Amino acid sequence: MAELPYDCLLFDIGGTLVAAADPATPVADLQPVLLPRVDGDLRRLADEFRLGAMTNTAVMTEADVRVHLDAVGIDGLLEVVVTSVDVGAHKPDPRGLAIAMRRIGSAPERTLYIGDLPTDRDAARRAGCDFAYLDGTLGETVDAALGRAGRPFFRAARAIAPPDAAALRAARDRHDRLAKPPGSLGVVEALGVQLAGIAGACPPPDPFPAAVAVFAADHGVAATGVTMWPQELTGVVAGVVAGGRAGINAIAGSVGAEVHVIDVGTVAGVPGPGVRMEPVRAGTADLSAGPAMCDDDVLAALDVGVAVAGDLVDGGARCLVTGEVGIGNTTAAAAVVAALTGKRGVDVAGRGAGADDATLARKVAAIDAGLARVGPPAGPLRVLAEVGGLEIAAIAGFVVGAASRRVPVVVDGAIACAALLAAGDLAPDVLPYVIAGHRSAEPAGGIVLDRLKLVPLLDLGMRLGEGTGACLALPTVRAAARVLAEMATLDELGAPAG
Amino acid sequence: MAELPYDCLLFDIGGTLVAAADPATPVADLQPVLLPRVDGDLRRLADEFRLGAMTNTAVMTEADVRVHLDAVGIDGLLEVVVTSVDVGAHKPDPRGLAIAMRRIGSAPERTLYIGDLPTDRDAARRAGCDFAYLDGTLGETVDAALGRAGRPFFRAARAIAPPDAAALRAARDRHDRLAKPPGSLGVVEALGVQLAGIAGACPPPDPFPAAVAVFAADHGVAATGVTMWPQELTGVVAGVVAGGRAGINAIAGSVGAEVHVIDVGTVAGVPGPGVRMEPVRAGTADLSAGPAMCDDDVLAALDVGVAVAGDLVDGGARCLVTGEVGIGNTTAAAAVVAALTGKRGVDVAGRGAGADDATLARKVAAIDAGLARVGPPAGPLRVLAEVGGLEIAAIAGFVVGAASRRVPVVVDGAIACAALLAAGDLAPDVLPYVIAGHRSAEPAGGIVLDRLKLVPLLDLGMRLGEGTGACLALPTVRAAARVLAEMATLDELGAPAG
Repeated sequence: MAELPYDCLLFDIGGTLVAAADPATPVADLQPVLLPRVDGDLRRLADEFRLGAMTNTAVMTEADVRVHLDAVGIDGLLEVVVTSVDVGAHKPDPRGLAIAMRRIGSAPERTLYIGDLPTDRDAARRAGCDFAYLDGTLGETVDAALGRAGRPFFRAARAIAPPDAAALRAARDRHDRLAKPPGSLGVVEALGVQLAGIAGACPPPDPFPAAVAVFAADHGVAATGVTMWPQELTGVVAGVVAGGRAGINAIAGSVGAEVHVIDVGTVAGVPGPGVRMEPVRAGTADLSAGPAMCDDDVLAALDVGVAVAGDLVDGGARCLVTGEVGIGNTTAAAAVVAALTGKRGVDVAGRGAGADDATLARKVAAIDAGLARVGPPAGPLRVLAEVGGLEIAAIAGFVVGAASRRVPVVVDGAIACAALLAAGDLAPDVLPYVIAGHRSAEPAGGIVLDRLKLVPLLDLGMRLGEGTGACLALPTVRAAARVLAEMATLDELGAPAG
Repeated sequence: MAELPYDCLLFDIGGTLVAAADPATPVADLQPVLLPRVDGDLRRLADEFRLGAMTNTAVMTEADVRVHLDAVGIDGLLEVVVTSVDVGAHKPDPRGLAIAMRRIGSAPERTLYIGDLPTDRDAARRAGCDFAYLDGTLGETVDAALGRAGRPFFRAARAIAPPDAAALRAARDRHDRLAKPPGSLGVVEALGVQLAGIAGACPPPDPFPAAVAVFAADHGVAATGVTMWPQELTGVVAGVVAGGRAGINAIAGSVGAEVHVIDVGTVAGVPGPGVRMEPVRAGTADLSAGPAMCDDDVLAALDVGVAVAGDLVDGGARCLVTGEVGIGNTTAAAAVVAALTGKRGVDVAGRGAGADDATLARKVAAIDAGLARVGPPAGPLRVLAEVGGLEIAAIAGFVVGAASRRVPVVVDGAIACAALLAAGDLAPDVLPYVIAGHRSAEPAGGIVLDRLKLVPLLDLGMRLGEGTGACLALPTVRAAARVLAEMATLDELGAPAG
């Protein structure tokens, strides 16, 4: 079994193995009901893995829980059961998982935890083990996680290191010793500290040259009248980008950034040379009528993003910028954000590239139709498959790829924000590597920035996409590094004491 | 008399020749009182100039006014008297002045109008003649205006042309034909239109390279405890800028801008090479105790600014950026803004480079003490002399110099805003040439931006000065021009119709 990425599977209980009960239910009244196929799936998995459970409860100890598990016939399949009452700490505190792993004798990097809530994911992350949201039956979830574990996206996600604490500290200290009033460079100071943490060095290296990756893809939902523009325009515009005559080219040229175009799934292809062809499929299906794509398409698009980020870094890029072209993609992005934040179409839909009232109404309806299928809780992979887009998934992979290479990534508007939300859900360690470039005019973008506590560097009323807003923030990113590297310190000056 | 810059002097009446009366005073009750020395001054001026008057009134015709002027003995000295009732239009409508000039037979470029209100100045500007605020007696005002008329600042102010209307129109049209949703580049589009108007060409030329002028000067008020920093630090910091190790150097380097240091009046001089020496005086006097400087110092500093702008443009700069170093200069800047906007110390004073509560209180008191001497209405030259600073005046000249050469100028924080307010008061045509780079944390800066309806491109919490905030806006300025020059149009694409 050396090829399996895990020795040990740990499970949440309520909502994962048994139907979730109202937390107010008295212990004596609990009547656990196994979720479909859990019994058979656990028996099969027990042949290959050590199995255990870790659950948050209000009052129950291991013994209490085991009584209930015994009643539904699965107690004997779980070597270890740990409750938050036993350890005196609730998830997302990682101690319960740590104790479960210790008792079972499995290392965190060889353990997969499966649950249904963000709290479960956060506990896994803090405990150092992998995590998968329950997605279909238990067996399907594990099979999918096993299949994914070796893929580029999940390998990149595991490879992300936290920012370097010593470099963060050194950068803060250095800012206080530079020849200026403390704090007088405002956001530029915080950005310099972030860059030091990312690079693991103070002063941080010059984040130059920068490369913009423009991912192009089509959206089946465009045919339902959610946009004023015809779907074929995606390929045309991407071709203009590849030809150097689009908005992103003029703007990237002004800041010395390179532009790369990746066809991750247009319907008609991108005309002309200079396009990296990575088509996962010829556009998504209509998300208002059924899943936009299958799980494998999502995984393939995530991997494209990781590969592009890696190739750009290998080619010398020291800062990456997200870009996209995709007629209809503000609808998909808004749907992804709504599904991952529990909002509705009306909360997230904006006018994109100029939707009129009737178009906006169709957009809201399409998003709500998609959301009706997803149903909370749904993990980010399921959400991307149901209502996402190929370029959205690719950008999620791109962001994770950048972070795994310790390179800062500047995100643009609503599309990138939707991708970032999914990426951060799958790999929360990605967030310290992210710089928000420009405040999107789309509601979905603002919702993500607020949720992730990201303050964009610019607010210039731009809504073209392509990465244009983020690109204009690049000189500020660069300045943040150069200030730390080049400014004199007060000591050097022998300045008179204030 | 060929050396006199004017053939004709026109005067406002109320507040300029006679004491201003309450506008509600019935005509029959008007008892005009000549302002000091007006009679003698007019007799002297009549030897060299054609004289006339143009006044706003609620009900009086030329004949009514002449009755009153006769009563105080000056009617015979004025060849022409025009009232707003006669022409059916009140100042700032220029028709009254135009009629007065036509009747007297003087060309606008050979005419000086003297008044006491911004309305008078605006009417003169629209009529195409020069203007001077009454400043001291009438004779002193004319003598000063004659002395100034040939100076670089006033020549540059007269040389400013309005933005080119055809280029503005062409840029707006072109934006609507570019391959993007109309308006989708937000502020970047408006900026491109502005640059086209400034250059008189669409697409506008690349505003690159850019040059930052860092004007260094000292402030006597610093000794009164309005700042936490010793006055000698001005020269030290300016020396660090000249040596390439200050914040502005790191930031300018990130955006490809050159940095130039000009000593326009430090107490101890700026150490090291690479400094343009243009000292007007060794710092200002304490503005809380008496005038910061004399009128001639203001004029000399204005001229330094014009000369520096001209030399940078001659050296190839296609965009100019304001910068400054001056311990205590947020106090002077706030006082200038308060004096020109009718506010008090508490409205305009901020914490500058980190003032504590006691320091801030001393700052407010110093500003109020200076304001008590100025007394409204006071023109910008008087305000600069009483409570201004050498670098503030130099920046006012620099801005006017840039506009006179049809080059855009990006202004930085509160110091530049105070200078801009004075410059715009002296030469309102300068404003279309100005781009606000960064929102200052100082209240005085925000007051000016609001009054001039300027929206800064950046808001990054910076308060270092030196031109750092404005510099970070340069890539956006450049992008605005390059978008118009480089992006494909929809026609070129043969894009499918939306």
